[in-house]
Amino acid sequence: VVTGGDPRAIVAAKRDGTTLSPAEIRAFIEGSTRGDVPDVLTAAFLMACFIRGLQDAETLELTRAMVESGQTLDLTGLRAAAVDKHSTGGVSDGVTLVFAPLGAALGLAVAKLSGRGLGHTGGTLDKLESIPGFRTDLEPSELHAQVERIGCAVAAQSSNLVPADGRLYALRDATATVESIPLIAASVMCKKLAVRTDLIELDVKAGSGAFMKTPVAATELAEACLALARGWERACIAHVTDMSQPLGDAVGNALDVVEAVHLLRGEKGGRLRDLTVRLAGDALARLEGVDPDEAADRADRALDDGSALERFRLMVEAQGGEPQVVEDPERILPRAPVIEPIVAVRAGTLAAVDAEAIGSASAALGAGRFRKGDPIDPAVGIVCTPKIGDRLEAGAPVGTVHARTRQAAREGAAAVLASFTLVDGPVPPPPLIHADLG
Amino acid sequence: VVTGGDPRAIVAAKRDGTTLSPAEIRAFIEGSTRGDVPDVLTAAFLMACFIRGLQDAETLELTRAMVESGQTLDLTGLRAAAVDKHSTGGVSDGVTLVFAPLGAALGLAVAKLSGRGLGHTGGTLDKLESIPGFRTDLEPSELHAQVERIGCAVAAQSSNLVPADGRLYALRDATATVESIPLIAASVMCKKLAVRTDLIELDVKAGSGAFMKTPVAATELAEACLALARGWERACIAHVTDMSQPLGDAVGNALDVVEAVHLLRGEKGGRLRDLTVRLAGDALARLEGVDPDEAADRADRALDDGSALERFRLMVEAQGGEPQVVEDPERILPRAPVIEPIVAVRAGTLAAVDAEAIGSASAALGAGRFRKGDPIDPAVGIVCTPKIGDRLEAGAPVGTVHARTRQAAREGAAAVLASFTLVDGPVPPPPLIHADLG
Repeated sequence: VVTGGDPRAIVAAKRDGTTLSPAEIRAFIEGSTRGDVPDVLTAAFLMACFIRGLQDAETLELTRAMVESGQTLDLTGLRAAAVDKHSTGGVSDGVTLVFAPLGAALGLAVAKLSGRGLGHTGGTLDKLESIPGFRTDLEPSELHAQVERIGCAVAAQSSNLVPADGRLYALRDATATVESIPLIAASVMCKKLAVRTDLIELDVKAGSGAFMKTPVAATELAEACLALARGWERACIAHVTDMSQPLGDAVGNALDVVEAVHLLRGEKGGRLRDLTVRLAGDALARLEGVDPDEAADRADRALDDGSALERFRLMVEAQGGEPQVVEDPERILPRAPVIEPIVAVRAGTLAAVDAEAIGSASAALGAGRFRKGDPIDPAVGIVCTPKIGDRLEAGAPVGTVHARTRQAAREGAAAVLASFTLVDGPVPPPPLIHADLG
Repeated sequence: VVTGGDPRAIVAAKRDGTTLSPAEIRAFIEGSTRGDVPDVLTAAFLMACFIRGLQDAETLELTRAMVESGQTLDLTGLRAAAVDKHSTGGVSDGVTLVFAPLGAALGLAVAKLSGRGLGHTGGTLDKLESIPGFRTDLEPSELHAQVERIGCAVAAQSSNLVPADGRLYALRDATATVESIPLIAASVMCKKLAVRTDLIELDVKAGSGAFMKTPVAATELAEACLALARGWERACIAHVTDMSQPLGDAVGNALDVVEAVHLLRGEKGGRLRDLTVRLAGDALARLEGVDPDEAADRADRALDDGSALERFRLMVEAQGGEPQVVEDPERILPRAPVIEPIVAVRAGTLAAVDAEAIGSASAALGAGRFRKGDPIDPAVGIVCTPKIGDRLEAGAPVGTVHARTRQAAREGAAAVLASFTLVDGPVPPPPLIHADLG
């Protein structure tokens, strides 16, 4: 069954557990993208794919059809080697804000096409747009030129890039077919494959704040993504990293920028800095043949000596934002009218955190959106400082809620405290990185 | 998960192989019927049901939600016991045209709500409407009164009856989820369960011209339908009958009425008469406690003595049709401009017939529709006389094609001949009835 046939025959074959041919997959996705295949049939197809699974060759062809549904972008051939770092989404996952200028400071080219936040996960574009004047709608030529000049840029993914992905994702969201490893891998990778860079670096999150709740599931997704990269003959490395708790402290938009600036000024340590240093170091090691430990040291130094901060300032300036944000972020960025402390109500060791609940609480304050296209409030959010293994004392502050009203602040604080599991004995902190692959 | 929850959770549960609760099934179908559940989610639900299957209790609740989606009709409490005979559709399946007046002649009440033809199967309404003036849009009160007075009526199923079924069927057709035993059983039975009669009699067809290609599959469907009737505490019997070849000779609309009139005049024997006699006899036996052989004899006599024909004449008259059709059907009914004989090109014993191909060839002439709502041509069609086991001689006529053009007639004749499998040795005729159930 190929183009011209009844697309229901392709769906029936998948329904019955048959492996589809490349021509069938391509015909179906092309028909779906053109609108020849009705949405209800695509919905049934997605459910059949979810239940019956997809072989590697089918997933590969699916990404090919998705990539070919739109324009592509070539970011190779710059002065510097280009890395496309991608995280699968989490809570307080401000890696990109730091990684982009840090990579640039290390001599790499980081042209990052980002998306917006949805549900409990934040979006890099939303965070950067909390900087007054910052624009993310860069033309491909602008993006190119900025990366060549400064070393980094973060822009919105054009709607011309893999339009089939947006369409399929919306349908998956509407039809309870999101949590399928091959469909997730295809969706993650088609966006990376449509933009040619020298290295794809995947940060696949695992844990309570991630889409993949366990390292095993996250590893399976990482392997599926790596298989697609191999099929496209693209260099790719993947890390399965911990999202059993918010990675940094800030869960919001302006609040994340504040935290990123403090990291870039070398004033703040912790897991968000450690992971970003590892990711940037590994990209440098892979692209420039630098020894990984030496590469990580260079990344650490670039945070401490202000060179990464300078790249951030240049990027903000180039994209129309207020560069003063690097000197006094709290003054430049929007600030919520109500800022309330979160106070621990009882003592104990933090054994687990429902990071998704914290993400959702921040979204409920207005920092996130529950439907695509909803507006967000850049000023509000949550700062939550304890990490698993930390000892909490009753009455001691564990963070702040930034809200529009006292009532909302109280609800946010209660949600944060409810997300904690406290125990009496000591608890070891979880690993930062579960696995390095590829 | 019940009403008010996210309907995607219900779909996810079925997707993962969970048996749904009655409340979940009901909430989903109600939401789908109201339009609260988007079509794409219903499509995904149907695919999940197709692949994961439905337990008896789930299918039962599905019919309940479908029946409750619209109005119901009570045809019990008439002077005579009411039987609702239903065939699952085949080629040259003119049973209803004969059964309704025959049942009435036997003292039963036959109020038949019918549908229109689709694809290779004909529809009783289309056939009857080839009689000039015949109307099928009877109000419930008209239907009641006519059955009480004459003993039979054949009317169009109101759109208020099980509206959820029409909606779900259209979605199944669009999403490659038609061939699911529980979904078919629910669709067949919801229409029977929404109309209260004293007996449901199912004629489940098996073979090349039927939806179910084998007696095993047809028996499975019959059992699923009987289970639903038991769940509703409704009397129901089912027959698995042969559709490995056209049941009668005529495959069209006016042509079927001509054949029915010849049967009702007692002028024609064969498998269509034999099956109709068996079905009417079994209904009489079950409803009136008559011995089955005696009941079949009475049915035979009612065809031979003109009493069934008289009921047909009264029904045609009551529904506005030209009653002269019972005297001279060929003159009263529309006639195609081109009537060509079909001539066997080689000798042999008819071993198999692709009845669906003959149905499709008739539909291609204009007698059927490929999409709901398409117009049909009442005059055209095919008459094909040989049955499996018959000896064909080269050059001998095996039927006629009734067409608009010579070209169409030639194509129709070729399709009929191509549908035959001829062998040299003798072939036993297939049984007429594979199984009696319930």
